[in-house]
Amino acid sequence: MSETDTDLERGTDELARRAERAALRLANVDEATRNEMLRSIADAIREREEAILAANATDVEAAEAMLADGEYTQALVDRLKLDETKVESIASMVESVAEQDDPLGETLAARELDEDLELYRVSVPIGVVATVFESRPDALVQIAALALKSGNAVVLKGGSEASESNRALYEAIVDATADLPDGWAAHIEAHEEVDRLLELDDRVDLVMPRGSSEFVSYIQENTQIPVLGHTEGICHVYVDADADLETAADVAFDAKVQYPAVCNAVETLLVNESVAAEFLPEIVDRYEAAGVELRGDERTREVVDVDPATADDWDTEYGDLELSITVVDDVYDAVEHVNEHGSKHTESILTEDSDTAETFMTGVDAASVFHNASTRFADGYRYGLGAEVGISTGKIHARGPVGLAGLTTYKYYLEGDGHLVASYSGEDAAPFTHRELDGAEWTPGRLSDR
Amino acid sequence: MSETDTDLERGTDELARRAERAALRLANVDEATRNEMLRSIADAIREREEAILAANATDVEAAEAMLADGEYTQALVDRLKLDETKVESIASMVESVAEQDDPLGETLAARELDEDLELYRVSVPIGVVATVFESRPDALVQIAALALKSGNAVVLKGGSEASESNRALYEAIVDATADLPDGWAAHIEAHEEVDRLLELDDRVDLVMPRGSSEFVSYIQENTQIPVLGHTEGICHVYVDADADLETAADVAFDAKVQYPAVCNAVETLLVNESVAAEFLPEIVDRYEAAGVELRGDERTREVVDVDPATADDWDTEYGDLELSITVVDDVYDAVEHVNEHGSKHTESILTEDSDTAETFMTGVDAASVFHNASTRFADGYRYGLGAEVGISTGKIHARGPVGLAGLTTYKYYLEGDGHLVASYSGEDAAPFTHRELDGAEWTPGRLSDR
Repeated sequence: MSETDTDLERGTDELARRAERAALRLANVDEATRNEMLRSIADAIREREEAILAANATDVEAAEAMLADGEYTQALVDRLKLDETKVESIASMVESVAEQDDPLGETLAARELDEDLELYRVSVPIGVVATVFESRPDALVQIAALALKSGNAVVLKGGSEASESNRALYEAIVDATADLPDGWAAHIEAHEEVDRLLELDDRVDLVMPRGSSEFVSYIQENTQIPVLGHTEGICHVYVDADADLETAADVAFDAKVQYPAVCNAVETLLVNESVAAEFLPEIVDRYEAAGVELRGDERTREVVDVDPATADDWDTEYGDLELSITVVDDVYDAVEHVNEHGSKHTESILTEDSDTAETFMTGVDAASVFHNASTRFADGYRYGLGAEVGISTGKIHARGPVGLAGLTTYKYYLEGDGHLVASYSGEDAAPFTHRELDGAEWTPGRLSDR
Repeated sequence: MSETDTDLERGTDELARRAERAALRLANVDEATRNEMLRSIADAIREREEAILAANATDVEAAEAMLADGEYTQALVDRLKLDETKVESIASMVESVAEQDDPLGETLAARELDEDLELYRVSVPIGVVATVFESRPDALVQIAALALKSGNAVVLKGGSEASESNRALYEAIVDATADLPDGWAAHIEAHEEVDRLLELDDRVDLVMPRGSSEFVSYIQENTQIPVLGHTEGICHVYVDADADLETAADVAFDAKVQYPAVCNAVETLLVNESVAAEFLPEIVDRYEAAGVELRGDERTREVVDVDPATADDWDTEYGDLELSITVVDDVYDAVEHVNEHGSKHTESILTEDSDTAETFMTGVDAASVFHNASTRFADGYRYGLGAEVGISTGKIHARGPVGLAGLTTYKYYLEGDGHLVASYSGEDAAPFTHRELDGAEWTPGRLSDR
């Protein structure tokens, strides 16, 4: 290990320690101040538009040079590039986070354990969250805003291709929030720093990677910090024997064509054999007219003229105008295919039969399972969750589209009057009442104030 | 790697794969069947009492031989030993799990997104849970029962010192649940198998270690599977300037003496300097009369005659009749000490001042923070959570005492009528209604049945 590495690693430890200390204080910064600071970040970004665009131009120029060398792709350069419209949309995004309901201090449950002994479960920040992201400089601002809204300290690490842009945006954030606990938002830049950051599972509570599937996998495999995110979206639409075929065609089309690049777009269409001959020719025409490249299994190709699918097709997230089609025996066959090949993201059944819908919906293991609706609805905004923190295909902590609640945990507050456990133990043990206090809100000392 | 290791590892992979497949079917086994199977496990354990005790006697005999060699401690042998009363209490524990409310199929939230487009968040099993535990054979039965109640497949790994007992109990479980999906409960015995199990983060969703603090730490450090548990309980009681000192003495005594071996017992008493001279002499007498070994910092020793505390004392979970005492300037000083030395488990303040209570309760970072109550209340049964799955000092997924809900996650079910995302995009985008459907329960096809 070189001297420089060691210094960078020590620096990362120190940043995380400061973030941890800041988090303890940030947890008790009131809602009005947090929202005021968010608006102040939005203002700072607007005021510094020129400097941000200049920094971004430096990044883009360097990336374009690498483009010529074949090191970077055009898509990366496109994601990197900011303009006035994008800077304004970053600023408005921060303002819209300020408008969201406060995720903190909500009494999630209240229960009387005994007379004058009351238990409250109240939402609080997690502590220190971190993000590691590629290209898009707006990710830095978005995660910082979501962290601040939810009272969390944050460690931000962007890609080297966006270093000037990230630095300019980070400076705007820090200067605008000088009133917040020192060190609440930290920025690291070197690869050695992120390697060390991923080791700090005692100081960092959650990592939210933003980038390609490979990138998210890399983070998941190289840290013991819980990761909120998803690698792939291999989503399916199953057209059942009892589907309304016109509706089914509309939904299958929407799920693929409306926006094929996103994780909730469909990758494989499953069709019940009893409707394949009627359903497939029309939907295939419609897909082909929209430029969708189709591949089918043998039973599909008996009905329509498409390229043969290979075994790999069933496990591929195309993220583009491509689709694989398979004909299945029945709903059980469909459930089996989905559980074998799906990524536990979003699955949809088209049927007018409630029992069949139930078999599919309860049988499929996925964060979101839809009945007669497009997979594209799986999204925090459409779900009404407000700001979307991410989409999780994990099952622990948060699943599916995740709102600000995904950046909170809870604390149990117990208000007593000198209660002892000894009174509830042994031969003359007093019983607990365990009565739910519906609608009660925790306020400190609520017993003595009565 | 030896041939045998490879076979064991392959065997572990296969067990986990079977558990994964079983989990998909177990998720839809109805409540009545799950409870019936639990009662059948209880019956089987009672029926096989003789065989279980014989198996246990073999383990105990072997352990006692190791005791002579100094390999095992008497405490381990005590934890290992079963008798008729213990077997009966294991059987009744399983029956009491059957009596609990069903944690599955609960509609946790319901929201109309638009007319005839309704989103439901419904509790479902996590999938495959695993436990790795030391000594106590009852842990095997308890985790299997909690897993079954919550519809999860389970992989069980006990210590080699209890191998005969574990095998006898596992056989009772498997024979009693022949009607459940094959492979729902797996049992592994070899060290190589647990090492491989901890690598299977793509198949196992949650690990619940049961054992010493070092043991839980070892599991946490050697797996990327989320761990539900806690290593240490370094809990504090802070006696404020505005405490009712008689109440404070009772609570401080209860928190240490009522049951010192458990994680929610107090390890350090913090006393506000303004009440130290009045409070300390009496409580010290009371502790000493109960056999509590006391250590104090300099300011404590100015008031009472106790041994000096060393720096290590503040970070030690005694788990015994031992206590460290420190005098602090004020509530802020107390909060700082707790956040520096606590294990985020359970903390308590004694004060009649609501503002001071609020400062402590919101300032301290712990799963449970109490006002005028003993730390010993931090427990799933006392909290009214029913069966306790464990106590978590982590902040992700579940925090504090965890009930059966800690073994569930949720699925989003969306019921539509052929809804397309295209209708909600672009220039003529329809708006979402995002209306909460309070009290609504998901039933498949609920729209068409209206």
